[in-house]
Amino acid sequence: MIRISIDLMGGDFGPEVVIPGVAKALDRHPDVTFVLFGVKADCQALLDQYPKLKAKSVFHECELAVSMDEKPSQALRRGRYISTMWRSIEAVKAGEADVVVSAGNTGALMAMAKFCLRTMASIERPAIAAIWPTLKGESIVLDVGATIGADSQQLLDFALMGGAMARALFEIDRPTVGLLNVGVEEIKGQEEVREAGRMIREANLDTIDYFGFVEGNDLGKGTVDVVVTEGYTGNIALKTAEGTARQIAEYLRAAMSRTWLAKLGYVLAKSAFDLLREKLDPRKVNGGVFLGLNGIVIKSHGGTDAEGFAAAIDVGYDMARNGLTQKIENDLKKYHAKRLPPAGTEADISARVEEI
Amino acid sequence: MIRISIDLMGGDFGPEVVIPGVAKALDRHPDVTFVLFGVKADCQALLDQYPKLKAKSVFHECELAVSMDEKPSQALRRGRYISTMWRSIEAVKAGEADVVVSAGNTGALMAMAKFCLRTMASIERPAIAAIWPTLKGESIVLDVGATIGADSQQLLDFALMGGAMARALFEIDRPTVGLLNVGVEEIKGQEEVREAGRMIREANLDTIDYFGFVEGNDLGKGTVDVVVTEGYTGNIALKTAEGTARQIAEYLRAAMSRTWLAKLGYVLAKSAFDLLREKLDPRKVNGGVFLGLNGIVIKSHGGTDAEGFAAAIDVGYDMARNGLTQKIENDLKKYHAKRLPPAGTEADISARVEEI
Repeated sequence: MIRISIDLMGGDFGPEVVIPGVAKALDRHPDVTFVLFGVKADCQALLDQYPKLKAKSVFHECELAVSMDEKPSQALRRGRYISTMWRSIEAVKAGEADVVVSAGNTGALMAMAKFCLRTMASIERPAIAAIWPTLKGESIVLDVGATIGADSQQLLDFALMGGAMARALFEIDRPTVGLLNVGVEEIKGQEEVREAGRMIREANLDTIDYFGFVEGNDLGKGTVDVVVTEGYTGNIALKTAEGTARQIAEYLRAAMSRTWLAKLGYVLAKSAFDLLREKLDPRKVNGGVFLGLNGIVIKSHGGTDAEGFAAAIDVGYDMARNGLTQKIENDLKKYHAKRLPPAGTEADISARVEEI
Repeated sequence: MIRISIDLMGGDFGPEVVIPGVAKALDRHPDVTFVLFGVKADCQALLDQYPKLKAKSVFHECELAVSMDEKPSQALRRGRYISTMWRSIEAVKAGEADVVVSAGNTGALMAMAKFCLRTMASIERPAIAAIWPTLKGESIVLDVGATIGADSQQLLDFALMGGAMARALFEIDRPTVGLLNVGVEEIKGQEEVREAGRMIREANLDTIDYFGFVEGNDLGKGTVDVVVTEGYTGNIALKTAEGTARQIAEYLRAAMSRTWLAKLGYVLAKSAFDLLREKLDPRKVNGGVFLGLNGIVIKSHGGTDAEGFAAAIDVGYDMARNGLTQKIENDLKKYHAKRLPPAGTEADISARVEEI
């Protein structure tokens, strides 16, 4: 049985979208129970409309909801311990839920998640991983916006965590991992990226299959299972791809409504266009996964609808069922055990001294 | 009359594509004369097929061609003074041409252009500007790969140069300029980007209209005329957009050939699909412009066809006709004159001391 904690108040539409979304997810995963956190006045009547959900969930009344435009520091000050966002995260910490899903504002969610769950022992900074639709299926891209800039060790950590997530999500043994870089000969990429490449190669990891550098156009091709980059570039790449998809959909819409013949053609080919629409549906790949924390946090798009929120729950379900946190912890331990000589030996001591 | 220098040997297909491309461009711009640089054995027979072009051009025989996979340093060592690439650039330096167009390898072209033309007095590092198709028309995005990382002063220089290019290309008075950044609240962007924003605002430039920060999805929307970023992120954004466009075209192709009805619909809506194809045609916006050098250098995609190479010449033609180099020089002078108090005054001296 998987237990999922839900922040009912997150997102642009709050419980109106989140509650039907949770109900949809329950239809798909009857083995789930939910722990719900909401402001009673906004949720009660809505919840009453979903008796099946009510039967499989516990509702916790909270004092306040973090708003979508609140700054992380402000959200923490105002909403720590008492907001639906905080308490839904806390349920994971307390072992009452296996994963938390929120459509609330990203900055506040990350700040609260870091504060409440803390980062894993060897992880300095968490990452947000996105699921990226490709010509081959799906890839994982991280970091798409948790941190700006990353040194080579952090990029290596991202590679390990992304690899663990790929194993949990795609159920493959040894996912391929690439480092995002530029191909122009003259400027052979950022020093940290090159150094990370050397380090990953030398680490000889058996949990991932290091591919080497990939470029921006490899994202859509699905060249590798996991693409690693720092948060500034990852966020810009993600939004550029989303923007390009919307731009082309708009071109297509305009072209198809220009002549009667085109309109007729559109009607005949409707099944094909529906298929395309499904392929491009951003709701289908909704759900950024926070990696590197002591617990699984899923961020749904704030502007999504019930179907999209249900998809974010799907991601959380898969991550919990396949033991994402445990996988990441094991992979990190394996790497660090390899990196440091056995504890207590002279080599160990000098290695530790060197680290300081 | 515009004089355009052409490296006939650049690109994946060399003169076979370049010469027909030049001939196409001549049809469109009868006021152009060409200075051609090629290896005789590869070009002579082809050129004979275009008598109109022969009449409006001078052919210079060269000893060697830079290959597409040569490293910049190697290309410089082997090809300086004698390659078609070098000599076509040199024609601009010598005042024999107003602009040079090459489909040769980017790294080598940039290295030779820097070595031969030198950067403008106040410019530390050149940029490559791309023309980006948007829902509103076109924007300019720079840097898409000349340099990795840029400090705030370099980003400001990019804004000035991109603005000058927008005035030359779009013939508008005061283009809007945005700095590419990430929107996630918690991580307010790179320090250099924020600092550049402050500096541009304070400089109160009358040659550009500073918009503020833009995000990845603003590229396709056409939110601003000029988007400024450093070369690593710009290159990844550009290739991500190209990759996404190809990915969606592939989805569409697959969907349209899945059923008989869809195929029939495709035939009826063919004019609409042709329009879409034209919108997405990468040849139409072919031509990266090197900015910040004492002369205009246009880089055509190496893999393009004659139509695409002609489009790169179109860009060069517009840039030369509208005096891009002069515009950039003027704008830079204006900014620097404003920045420093009149020479020799006390304020000037203390400003200079402060700078040291």
